[in-house]
Amino acid sequence: MSLRSLGVELHCRCIQTESKPIGRHIGKVELIPANSHCEETEIIATLKKTGQEVCLDPEAPWVKRVIQKILSNRRR
Amino acid sequence: MSLRSLGVELHCRCIQTESKPIGRHIGKVELIPANSHCEETEIIATLKKTGQEVCLDPEAPWVKRVIQKILSNRRR
Repeated sequence: MSLRSLGVELHCRCIQTESKPIGRHIGKVELIPANSHCEETEIIATLKKTGQEVCLDPEAPWVKRVIQKILSNRRR
Repeated sequence: MSLRSLGVELHCRCIQTESKPIGRHIGKVELIPANSHCEETEIIATLKKTGQEVCLDPEAPWVKRVIQKILSNRRR
């Protein structure tokens, strides 16, 4: 079983990050902590309509707000 | 192109959530906002060593802490 088959990436996945606040188009967000293969935390959003993956800047205030909103949002 | 091929799930993915604080075993975390197919925010962690997917409780204080730590962690 390869590391890749376990979903472990052996390098950073993000080259550049989205600067526009695209929060309302986001279907899901992946958080990848810094690890031995990539020294920076990576945040990868999947867009609702297109399924496109977009890297986000973990330092950007709008990104932090989007994540806090997902965490606090209870639709009930 | 099906919705599923876009990575859109048509139902909730979590049945139960992990109660033990497993933060240090987490390789990545997926945040799925509440949507028309699942009325609750879902948090799915992938474990480092096994690649196993584990649902986390968005309300659990340790889960919030783990996510804040990932967001603030800069390994540089």
